[in-house]
Amino acid sequence: MRFDEAYSGNVFIKSKQNYEKAQAVIYGMPMDWTVSYRPGSRFGPQRIREVSIGLEEYSPYLDRELDEVNYFDAGDIPLPFGNAAKSLDLIAGFIRQLLQDGKIPVGMGGEHLVSWPVMKTVADNYKDLAIIHMDAHTDLRVEYEGETLSHSTPIRKIAEYIGPKNVYSFGIRSGDKKEFDWAKENGMHISKFEVLEPLKEVLPTLEGRPVYVTIDIDVLDPAHAPGTGTVDCGGITSRELLASIHAIANSGVNVVGFDLVEVAPIYDQSEQTVNTASKLIREMLLGFVK
Amino acid sequence: MRFDEAYSGNVFIKSKQNYEKAQAVIYGMPMDWTVSYRPGSRFGPQRIREVSIGLEEYSPYLDRELDEVNYFDAGDIPLPFGNAAKSLDLIAGFIRQLLQDGKIPVGMGGEHLVSWPVMKTVADNYKDLAIIHMDAHTDLRVEYEGETLSHSTPIRKIAEYIGPKNVYSFGIRSGDKKEFDWAKENGMHISKFEVLEPLKEVLPTLEGRPVYVTIDIDVLDPAHAPGTGTVDCGGITSRELLASIHAIANSGVNVVGFDLVEVAPIYDQSEQTVNTASKLIREMLLGFVK
Amino acid sequence: MRFDEAYSGNVFIKSKQNYEKAQAVIYGMPMDWTVSYRPGSRFGPQRIREVSIGLEEYSPYLDRELDEVNYFDAGDIPLPFGNAAKSLDLIAGFIRQLLQDGKIPVGMGGEHLVSWPVMKTVADNYKDLAIIHMDAHTDLRVEYEGETLSHSTPIRKIAEYIGPKNVYSFGIRSGDKKEFDWAKENGMHISKFEVLEPLKEVLPTLEGRPVYVTIDIDVLDPAHAPGTGTVDCGGITSRELLASIHAIANSGVNVVGFDLVEVAPIYDQSEQTVNTASKLIREMLLGFVK
Amino acid sequence: MRFDEAYSGNVFIKSKQNYEKAQAVIYGMPMDWTVSYRPGSRFGPQRIREVSIGLEEYSPYLDRELDEVNYFDAGDIPLPFGNAAKSLDLIAGFIRQLLQDGKIPVGMGGEHLVSWPVMKTVADNYKDLAIIHMDAHTDLRVEYEGETLSHSTPIRKIAEYIGPKNVYSFGIRSGDKKEFDWAKENGMHISKFEVLEPLKEVLPTLEGRPVYVTIDIDVLDPAHAPGTGTVDCGGITSRELLASIHAIANSGVNVVGFDLVEVAPIYDQSEQTVNTASKLIREMLLGFVK
Amino acid sequence: MRFDEAYSGNVFIKSKQNYEKAQAVIYGMPMDWTVSYRPGSRFGPQRIREVSIGLEEYSPYLDRELDEVNYFDAGDIPLPFGNAAKSLDLIAGFIRQLLQDGKIPVGMGGEHLVSWPVMKTVADNYKDLAIIHMDAHTDLRVEYEGETLSHSTPIRKIAEYIGPKNVYSFGIRSGDKKEFDWAKENGMHISKFEVLEPLKEVLPTLEGRPVYVTIDIDVLDPAHAPGTGTVDCGGITSRELLASIHAIANSGVNVVGFDLVEVAPIYDQSEQTVNTASKLIREMLLGFVK
Amino acid sequence: MRFDEAYSGNVFIKSKQNYEKAQAVIYGMPMDWTVSYRPGSRFGPQRIREVSIGLEEYSPYLDRELDEVNYFDAGDIPLPFGNAAKSLDLIAGFIRQLLQDGKIPVGMGGEHLVSWPVMKTVADNYKDLAIIHMDAHTDLRVEYEGETLSHSTPIRKIAEYIGPKNVYSFGIRSGDKKEFDWAKENGMHISKFEVLEPLKEVLPTLEGRPVYVTIDIDVLDPAHAPGTGTVDCGGITSRELLASIHAIANSGVNVVGFDLVEVAPIYDQSEQTVNTASKLIREMLLGFVK
Repeated sequence: MRFDEAYSGNVFIKSKQNYEKAQAVIYGMPMDWTVSYRPGSRFGPQRIREVSIGLEEYSPYLDRELDEVNYFDAGDIPLPFGNAAKSLDLIAGFIRQLLQDGKIPVGMGGEHLVSWPVMKTVADNYKDLAIIHMDAHTDLRVEYEGETLSHSTPIRKIAEYIGPKNVYSFGIRSGDKKEFDWAKENGMHISKFEVLEPLKEVLPTLEGRPVYVTIDIDVLDPAHAPGTGTVDCGGITSRELLASIHAIANSGVNVVGFDLVEVAPIYDQSEQTVNTASKLIREMLLGFVK
Repeated sequence: MRFDEAYSGNVFIKSKQNYEKAQAVIYGMPMDWTVSYRPGSRFGPQRIREVSIGLEEYSPYLDRELDEVNYFDAGDIPLPFGNAAKSLDLIAGFIRQLLQDGKIPVGMGGEHLVSWPVMKTVADNYKDLAIIHMDAHTDLRVEYEGETLSHSTPIRKIAEYIGPKNVYSFGIRSGDKKEFDWAKENGMHISKFEVLEPLKEVLPTLEGRPVYVTIDIDVLDPAHAPGTGTVDCGGITSRELLASIHAIANSGVNVVGFDLVEVAPIYDQSEQTVNTASKLIREMLLGFVK
Repeated sequence: MRFDEAYSGNVFIKSKQNYEKAQAVIYGMPMDWTVSYRPGSRFGPQRIREVSIGLEEYSPYLDRELDEVNYFDAGDIPLPFGNAAKSLDLIAGFIRQLLQDGKIPVGMGGEHLVSWPVMKTVADNYKDLAIIHMDAHTDLRVEYEGETLSHSTPIRKIAEYIGPKNVYSFGIRSGDKKEFDWAKENGMHISKFEVLEPLKEVLPTLEGRPVYVTIDIDVLDPAHAPGTGTVDCGGITSRELLASIHAIANSGVNVVGFDLVEVAPIYDQSEQTVNTASKLIREMLLGFVK
Repeated sequence: MRFDEAYSGNVFIKSKQNYEKAQAVIYGMPMDWTVSYRPGSRFGPQRIREVSIGLEEYSPYLDRELDEVNYFDAGDIPLPFGNAAKSLDLIAGFIRQLLQDGKIPVGMGGEHLVSWPVMKTVADNYKDLAIIHMDAHTDLRVEYEGETLSHSTPIRKIAEYIGPKNVYSFGIRSGDKKEFDWAKENGMHISKFEVLEPLKEVLPTLEGRPVYVTIDIDVLDPAHAPGTGTVDCGGITSRELLASIHAIANSGVNVVGFDLVEVAPIYDQSEQTVNTASKLIREMLLGFVK
Repeated sequence: MRFDEAYSGNVFIKSKQNYEKAQAVIYGMPMDWTVSYRPGSRFGPQRIREVSIGLEEYSPYLDRELDEVNYFDAGDIPLPFGNAAKSLDLIAGFIRQLLQDGKIPVGMGGEHLVSWPVMKTVADNYKDLAIIHMDAHTDLRVEYEGETLSHSTPIRKIAEYIGPKNVYSFGIRSGDKKEFDWAKENGMHISKFEVLEPLKEVLPTLEGRPVYVTIDIDVLDPAHAPGTGTVDCGGITSRELLASIHAIANSGVNVVGFDLVEVAPIYDQSEQTVNTASKLIREMLLGFVK
Repeated sequence: MRFDEAYSGNVFIKSKQNYEKAQAVIYGMPMDWTVSYRPGSRFGPQRIREVSIGLEEYSPYLDRELDEVNYFDAGDIPLPFGNAAKSLDLIAGFIRQLLQDGKIPVGMGGEHLVSWPVMKTVADNYKDLAIIHMDAHTDLRVEYEGETLSHSTPIRKIAEYIGPKNVYSFGIRSGDKKEFDWAKENGMHISKFEVLEPLKEVLPTLEGRPVYVTIDIDVLDPAHAPGTGTVDCGGITSRELLASIHAIANSGVNVVGFDLVEVAPIYDQSEQTVNTASKLIREMLLGFVK
């Protein structure tokens, strides 16, 4: 991790050299040790940076260029292999610093559990925070095979922390019955299967509120994102996900932080998923950091 | 971990331990020796079982859990390598036993030719049987380079056996001219390219009839199912296929058997196709076995 | 390369043995040395031919068979590795010969720059030529890192040669701002993101005109064409591309040449992209060569 | 195929059905959360079992058949994802039970840290235990980036527990200077680069002693074992490793337990490494369990 | 298959255009339907031809160039998918023709069973024929799971046909006990594990005799030939195999036919195995066809 | 490329931050446009740097640590895609600067042609320069299909420039007859097949002379280096190559520059080749830079 000291790793394309002046800060959370299925997302952030070099700097969707946004890439947060609790503490500490310095956190995972300390810390900072969550999975478990620090629990944790009514999930196509029931009973929004249309209905109700956007890449169909731990058919296309990001960008919500998680390069034939991830981050930087 | 207790090593997730009480029986037909292009589907059934362990047991599409269905996994039928005639006999014998015992056969291929002895045996058991067939290919050849026992012939065989008017093909995008002509001349239903919409029109006409559903995974576009012998672009999405299964499940037809064939793991990047196959089987178990 | 002499390489399925009588001539342009990202498209033409053997000869889309079209496969044009200027000269010379002999050129790339000498030579032959261009990228740069002979420049070159108003680009989702601005200022048609719908609007205006069709395989989403140098999410499906080809085939334009470029087999999991490419060429042969 | 009879789905080939009578017990330790580089060895044990079905039951090296050895496969020990401390406790408990029941433990990893609780528990049971360790790496660190429960520390831990003079490492080609220095200063045996020749010199000195053999698959050159977390060239061939196992089998040492770790199937092209691992386990069962 | 008629497929590099004048004839036997493990060798011959284009024409081992040998490539023998008996008949018929025409047969597999009709037909033609067999497996079974036409039986068949004393196997490292026992009891030569050294001892005893050489690519270690159906560690290096071929070439035996089988491109990372196979065939052409 | 300015790319592990004080300078030459077979080595240097992070800093072979060597990583030289002549000029200019500044050049390719301008410039600087060349190929062609700037020509060029008697090639196993003849006639040293033993004989004759070492990774057998453009069996092991480097390091020659070329990550299963390359560079830095 770096703020101002010399750094010898790749950074996301067009990152500025100066932390102080940056409006947003990109960072990686290379943790994958609580996943129950295929690990490997620890390498996601570095590969996303590497292929970002091939991105066009201009978005024909938003008619804006990366040079118009001031962001700094802090590298990956060094996390202790196999120690989930300590890793989450380190992430929380890092985010507290960013928020103190007035930065918008832009996270790259890593498994989805890394979003929990980020969302919690952002919630401590912004009253009335809402979460927009796009994912194949509910992630609403209390624990997974005895572990509460599991990649299946982050949305449950933040929903309990800020209240389930402030959490909006989209594109969900997997979970156990109890998770769906809990959401229903507690007034949490879940849109099954679809993202764009229900999101367009929700966005006007969130106008003016601070919003944290957390995207699990597996909200995409495996055809569009094979490079992830859990491949679950029936997902959305990358076109729908791009359009959903643009819908948020063009709405009246105030995005105060966002992340993209669960990119696992080892399963990523033809580098399709890492390239998609880097384009999604470009679009979010251009659309959310104003 | 086990010491002496019952062990359920490599069976489809949530299979029950007891054959007698089972309503449906899952079995693999690991044969791929008549395919003219890329072999490898012999390993399909085993890999589908292996990844089924990662499936959620609950379907948010059908609001039903696997525990609500009683099925037994009989493993793979041992078939003699390179001997197509004998393999088909063995399959037919196995199915006869299942039907005598009142079970619903749930087959996993293997090449599509394996469906022929199954469909024939089911037809012997159920008068007025109709076939719902989803596939990229017509499979209506009389023979292929001199061999009548070929992966290109099973639908022709069953169509001649029960009458072409009782066979309904969907999603077809490849075949030779003669095959399409034969279907037309003989009143067999072929929906080119599309599955869901024409299926919705056909289903009401089949209400109350016994129906066998045979799905060649290559009805999906290669983007959604790269792990198959013949990749042919222009196919449907996994969402359309899921919706088609649900349409059958919610119709008034009586599904008396079904199979999913041509899953070839060696070509299956990121295990996308085997995971899709295992989810499709979950949905068919939940939707068809009532 | 061959005209009549003995040849010992694969040819596209159903190619006729006789150059003189052929209406169309297939050829490969195995060049990839100016690409700025992943090379490998030099192997595209050979792999497309190889898998073409698995194609059905009949198109259920167009109800026509390959036997009804008379085409000759001339093999790959031998191009000097690493020498772009000389390669383009050789291509131009080859095309001049084809046009003198009254043949329709059917090219397979190779990188997109190979289309430049082809289009130029065709333009010299057909007054009032229009270009239909399907691609993820504008390819409208003047130069790329100092080189004017770059895979990013062919559409700019032909637009300047025949006038930007005669070039119609579809499906574009990447480029720098200057490229889009140049197109706008110069009256060149660019349809962003979509192909089929805007194409249907454009086609009637081109009726009766000679048209050259150039397709970069990356107009497809990476889900549908992972085997290419640059994977850029948000593209169209193979169904939309097939439908677009059929729209041209069924319009009143006069296709006088066409190509398909940027197929790079090394990145092509499960041979999906090369199979798609060979089907696209089949459809174009059946639809464009009348 | 099965109806009601006992089923041996996914166990190591020729495992007996009865725990009580078994002399040796095979088990998997599917943990990979402390690795600092590429995870994935959690899937090693299951894949080794799966391909074991293709093994010949007879060893032409040892002229012995698997039927002559009585072993039971207990499946994988269920370990809590991302919790190293608890995982090691569970492994230790499992091994204590095996030793109480008089079984020879036969472990499959998982990362190398899993060998630590096994070796410790075996050492508690057998006075004068010696360790034979084959590996590319010293694994002698005290901690790795602050974590003492790391895949880099197991040999240090056991060396400190039973005394460095009782630990014999072979084939070592990587480590930091401090590790090599510590071994030297403390009288621990390290053979750099070579296995077979130095092993032949050591074995006579261990005659009659109880010995635990722990093999990290990366002692093999990556040419022979690409499917592992850390690929480090300059290793031994599979022939040398087989010969080394046979040398132990034919010596006068008393092997009281053994394991094979760090097999990571996701990096294993052509299933070479898992097949090698399953053959190595066959040879160790035939050679060590008498 | 072709003799003189026009042909539109790849041929092995430097094949002559004229069958009549050819001394040796290359042909493929694209059959893989009796293999018990991984199929795919049907594509071996075509891929070997394709990569042969990259071979140097000169051998620095033998100081001879391909132009000095007159050979014709007849393409692949068209075999009926899934019909082993008929396929073997077709192969036998083809070989009979070659021998009548005085050609040396040079076969490319395909599974090893294809060598059986070749060896039998060659034995009918040459009295006192000896077989030199290099393989990981004995291939001495009488039947495999009830099928006598199995990839595990060809050496048993030819040994019974010409007498076990005339068959010399090298490099064997897998088989069941009965196979090794049968060989021993019947005076058949089996060299376990090694090829070059025992071959050097055997060759002088065969001087002047007609010899057929059959090589299963899996005699190589999987490190050297991952692209095959069965990967079994402990094999020889490609250097040892090359040296073994040169030992035969430089001995006084009269090679009257040879083949290389079991090359399965789908498992062949980096095209290593097909390139090795094409170099082995070059060396055998240069060394055996005088 | 960078000297002192801020840099935002990966560097080789333990590179120092200061150019002025560095004794050696690492740089990449990402060019692959003249290769006649598989391109992709342009990505070699970046991937070697990336995996270097996983290297141990200590060599148990040489008992030396990277901290004891002062080297700077200048990044990749930006080369114009597809323009070989200009690329070579840029490389020559860069090397001239390094030599003026008294640095030892440490190059990473890219195709082998990049070594030509380096060797020439080094030869201009050091009278009596000798070349030690390890490779599968002679690289002694005058031209390749008409192009003198080809990956098949660099050793011929330098041999003609400094005199063939000053060039020593080892491990050669491919080339055309003319190349071997030219070497012989002109007194150039070529050791076929072997590296270590003939090198040990040559080294004493070079004592005290300035030597440039150029290694084509394909001197290794494909089992040890699948990630390269041309895979040619019969090569040496990584152990022999390591030992050869150590032999040079321990001899009395004065290594004034060295490179490692032809690493092509796209063909590199399990990242074996890039990891090997990064270890080879570590050993050369530790052994050659004194």
